Amino acid sequence: MNQADIILINAHVLTMNQTFQRFNPGAVAIKGQSIVAVGSQGDIMASWNAPEIMDCSGKVIMPGLINAHTHVPMTLLRGLADDLRLDVWLMGYMMPVERQFVTPEFVRLGTLIACAEMIRGGTTCFVDMYYFEKEVARAAAEAGMRAICGESILKFPTPDASSFEESLAYSQSFIDEWKNHPLIVPAIAPHAPYTCTPEILRLSTALAVKNNVPLVTHLSETALEVENMRSETGMPVIPYVKKQGIFEAKVIAAHCVHIDEGEMRTMQKVNAGVAHNPSSNLKLASGIAPIKKMSEVGLNVGIGTDGPASNNDLDMFEEMRLTSLLSKGASGDPTVLPARQTLAMATRIGAKSIHLDHITGSLEPGKRADLILLDVSPLHNAPQFFRDPNGIYAQIVYAAKSTDVSDVMVNGHWLMTGHRLTTVNEEDLLAQAAVFAKKIDAFLAEREQSILSKLIAIGGAAEQESFEIQIKVKIKDCAPVLQALFNHPQIEILRHRHYHQYDTYFSFADPNQGRLRYREDHLMDENHKITSTRSRLTLIGNAREGHFPQDVLLSRSRYLAPAVQSLRFYQEYFNPSHIDEINKDRNRYLVKYHETEFFINIDEVLKPSLEYYLEIKSSTWSRNDAENKSKLAVDLISLLGADPSQAVTQDYIELIQPNA
Amino acid sequence: MNQADIILINAHVLTMNQTFQRFNPGAVAIKGQSIVAVGSQGDIMASWNAPEIMDCSGKVIMPGLINAHTHVPMTLLRGLADDLRLDVWLMGYMMPVERQFVTPEFVRLGTLIACAEMIRGGTTCFVDMYYFEKEVARAAAEAGMRAICGESILKFPTPDASSFEESLAYSQSFIDEWKNHPLIVPAIAPHAPYTCTPEILRLSTALAVKNNVPLVTHLSETALEVENMRSETGMPVIPYVKKQGIFEAKVIAAHCVHIDEGEMRTMQKVNAGVAHNPSSNLKLASGIAPIKKMSEVGLNVGIGTDGPASNNDLDMFEEMRLTSLLSKGASGDPTVLPARQTLAMATRIGAKSIHLDHITGSLEPGKRADLILLDVSPLHNAPQFFRDPNGIYAQIVYAAKSTDVSDVMVNGHWLMTGHRLTTVNEEDLLAQAAVFAKKIDAFLAEREQSILSKLIAIGGAAEQESFEIQIKVKIKDCAPVLQALFNHPQIEILRHRHYHQYDTYFSFADPNQGRLRYREDHLMDENHKITSTRSRLTLIGNAREGHFPQDVLLSRSRYLAPAVQSLRFYQEYFNPSHIDEINKDRNRYLVKYHETEFFINIDEVLKPSLEYYLEIKSSTWSRNDAENKSKLAVDLISLLGADPSQAVTQDYIELIQPNA
Repeated sequence: MNQADIILINAHVLTMNQTFQRFNPGAVAIKGQSIVAVGSQGDIMASWNAPEIMDCSGKVIMPGLINAHTHVPMTLLRGLADDLRLDVWLMGYMMPVERQFVTPEFVRLGTLIACAEMIRGGTTCFVDMYYFEKEVARAAAEAGMRAICGESILKFPTPDASSFEESLAYSQSFIDEWKNHPLIVPAIAPHAPYTCTPEILRLSTALAVKNNVPLVTHLSETALEVENMRSETGMPVIPYVKKQGIFEAKVIAAHCVHIDEGEMRTMQKVNAGVAHNPSSNLKLASGIAPIKKMSEVGLNVGIGTDGPASNNDLDMFEEMRLTSLLSKGASGDPTVLPARQTLAMATRIGAKSIHLDHITGSLEPGKRADLILLDVSPLHNAPQFFRDPNGIYAQIVYAAKSTDVSDVMVNGHWLMTGHRLTTVNEEDLLAQAAVFAKKIDAFLAEREQSILSKLIAIGGAAEQESFEIQIKVKIKDCAPVLQALFNHPQIEILRHRHYHQYDTYFSFADPNQGRLRYREDHLMDENHKITSTRSRLTLIGNAREGHFPQDVLLSRSRYLAPAVQSLRFYQEYFNPSHIDEINKDRNRYLVKYHETEFFINIDEVLKPSLEYYLEIKSSTWSRNDAENKSKLAVDLISLLGADPSQAVTQDYIELIQPNA
Repeated sequence: MNQADIILINAHVLTMNQTFQRFNPGAVAIKGQSIVAVGSQGDIMASWNAPEIMDCSGKVIMPGLINAHTHVPMTLLRGLADDLRLDVWLMGYMMPVERQFVTPEFVRLGTLIACAEMIRGGTTCFVDMYYFEKEVARAAAEAGMRAICGESILKFPTPDASSFEESLAYSQSFIDEWKNHPLIVPAIAPHAPYTCTPEILRLSTALAVKNNVPLVTHLSETALEVENMRSETGMPVIPYVKKQGIFEAKVIAAHCVHIDEGEMRTMQKVNAGVAHNPSSNLKLASGIAPIKKMSEVGLNVGIGTDGPASNNDLDMFEEMRLTSLLSKGASGDPTVLPARQTLAMATRIGAKSIHLDHITGSLEPGKRADLILLDVSPLHNAPQFFRDPNGIYAQIVYAAKSTDVSDVMVNGHWLMTGHRLTTVNEEDLLAQAAVFAKKIDAFLAEREQSILSKLIAIGGAAEQESFEIQIKVKIKDCAPVLQALFNHPQIEILRHRHYHQYDTYFSFADPNQGRLRYREDHLMDENHKITSTRSRLTLIGNAREGHFPQDVLLSRSRYLAPAVQSLRFYQEYFNPSHIDEINKDRNRYLVKYHETEFFINIDEVLKPSLEYYLEIKSSTWSRNDAENKSKLAVDLISLLGADPSQAVTQDYIELIQPNA
């Protein structure tokens, strides 16, 4: 008799090996960290003995599930912000909160919570990409899970590095510390082609190759990414990263929603793995990955949950179900991605996709004992039919729930027995998470109270240091004003610009928040052709610093930010209670008058049609200077043939919104 | 103080009313079958008293979920057959098994199992459509659930009626028995426009209107259905059923995957409800329903699981999650169908869609006490953020699981308390289900052993009673044979047909099963134009009844069936181990020779190219007659200038597959 440490008997054993062998009743013998025998109960019991024989009747034994792509510490951000555009979600919420809160302590706690959730749901191995990856590795090892931990590299500063060189150095030290660990595979994770320079991609690849560790990245997640890559480099994403040499490393590429057959073949040839994330791809509206075609091409496709902030959980049963259902629905063919194939994607093929198939992914002698017991007795699994040998796979993929997982073993150690976790204290973790959540809630609540804070949170607004005086008069016609301007001996024209100016004003329920103006300037040449455009965001406070005779206005409290996002982004992010649009044609003259510079704007307000206005503006640094300039401005109004007594202090937005 | 029977306190109360009021901590007071008060805990406790005060801390109280479309007895067929084409699944498996097994006992058991599963998952109300609907009503009422029970009407015989008139009579008696029940709403369910005649639609509507009960049906589930409707009636499905008058009734229309905006408006105007079934629509590859557009049009759309044989469960949490995710993914807009709206579709709007919003769907005084408690403490729901008032909805839709439901009340009665069912004995049901499953397994296993049984199962094959003699000789050229045929004084030509004949042969691992031939005949006119086509399925046994001199073959054991399904259907359904194709051009002459009728086939085998054959065939009824005819056939061969000593007994398929 051969000697094992434990034999699991009386189960329906799904080996998920190449030929999909099943044994019912079957048995699995485990010695140390490894599986030593799998077979029919009779065969195993005839030739193996062990001090512990565990009766698994009513259960399925199968390989643990492999979560091929996630960001585990983000459990702590689960449910923070949902149903938003990708950019609002990422730049308005995730990144500001990460900048503020992501510390080694945060990463450790988030990882432990994720491990607890994944173990409960039958996941035994995951591929992570985040910051402070040493903490992810430490926490995963403590929880007893198998993990590939990829340290993120980006061209921007990150929560754990002020530059990508620092991240690369961190990665090397991480790899040195964790290489050859029985559970953890350290890895390097250049975030994505659009967040990394070609140099980062090349240096990351070199580091991965030198240390023989996987390279984890995001590729072709959205159509926009591909479109941008095409317009910038003339090629789609896969050829581009190939050109940077990344396929010299063992690549694990998340998403690949928008790749064509040629790109699939490229990836197949170099044995790159793909992590399919159906929930995340739907939730963020990235699209539906062509899994059917990928399988036909022979790509190794695993299944991932993506981070729990965009899913919002780590439930591989949901992902499997969705993988099959979505491929059927999208292809119009209900025979596509049958349950058995999907379960293989979450186990053996998933292991291949992450370059760990020599260790895990199926129940075969020699592989590590990474396995789960599934209780098929709950009502939603009933009844059970045995005629169709594929019936058990369909039951698992289409009807079973993650909560049916009763026992989980990784590397020969039990991490859950009878629904009870053995390595993680859930209550402790939940209490700690609640503390973090409270702090994050408070941080965001405070920020959300102030439009200014929200503006600062998404990239910083520069406070405009200067005061400004401003006077505006309605005019009937531009011609006499222009004639006066061009001909008056005391007015020297320094510069002229012609703009078409599109302003969108956001107003808020609380008028003390001020108004936010999104301005798009189209600069025109002499032939009225647009030569360039620019967008700016300006927070205009209500506070008025002073009022001068003839309604010259002195104002401050303006915050400017380049508008790098779209108008729709800001609209959703700032969620104004009211929106107004003003379009105008503006001829702006920088003039010198009495040794003082003024801007003279001759505006034709086109929407709403307010006709013509003459506006004089000047920057100022002191109340005395402002007083002096306001007098000169009033003079200018007169010189240009308009009537200063008709001057209005209001901005255009106030003229069209008199009650605001 | 007002007096209630029970007050639920200390919960996060989601009323799901029109303004989405929430109370945290909130309370709900219940008296008899109704909700009498909902509000903040302070307000409720200040003005209400009750003998029972239940502490619900750590829980969400919300309206019970409404499953707007299902076929509950099909729990007993869950997992029977998956990953198949719709027609194979339906006509190859579901319908044959239903014909054999669906009895009142089956319906009762399947309904009780479904109720147990639905109660566990927080569903308090469902809309059913099946057979023996009186049993569904009885079992649902016994389990304490609210249900609309629609008796199916089809133009074909069903398990509970040999004609639609019987079904209509059953429906009237069902309505008479169950009208005004506190939980059950009887309904009539003409299955679908393509399974009902216009007369059935009109009579069903009349019955629904007369009795003021809902009319449940399937509309526009697949693109094929719409295409067929268009080609048959010149209009899509909604205008067609409108023409039949069905919208005079309170319609609950399942699926509506393929309807356009005009059809949506038609349905909206008549207040027809739609039941969206995302899992089923994906799994059967029917498509993705345009839910975003339906909501914009103002249609009342509820969410359903569809039957558990095409889902494969009754989990409304999965359906809600998929509803939001799928609408985002399909529309490319991640802000579409935010969680709160989806939860409303599964509660208040769902109630509207099934015409029960005056009774259920939200927590409001006066409505029935149909509510659930959701435990938000499990790890996958952590952490909890409170900044965003919509956060709780996102948590429920994107992260919570059906297994988080801890308590369920319907009509003021507890059906589950602390995860324990109070009205249904699960163990009993599971044991009974196992007995059914075993019988169904055996029935199908026996059927699957025999190609003949499978052929009979899908519509019956007629055994060809006659024997047949057959002799075949290879010829070099047709011309001399035709010349002999046309000119021989003893041969009278009775009829001539010219076919292009496409044969597909299925062979099986067990040669004793015989071969199945799918034959498509294209009948040609004198100008070689196709005038008609027909398809037949023939099971050709291996057994040879006898052998005559000159290799005349005597055979029987043929079973014929009209091939009403497509070749692909049969291919998938019979799952042959080998497939061969033979195409030939056949000139078939019915001749009289010595007062005996023979068929003379002059074949040009085109694929594979076997050149020309002359074949003589005749039916026969006795061995003596066969012997006589075989002699005449050999004569005919000679008369037509071919050499009988070169005759072969094999069919073409055997000539190209010599080892078979």
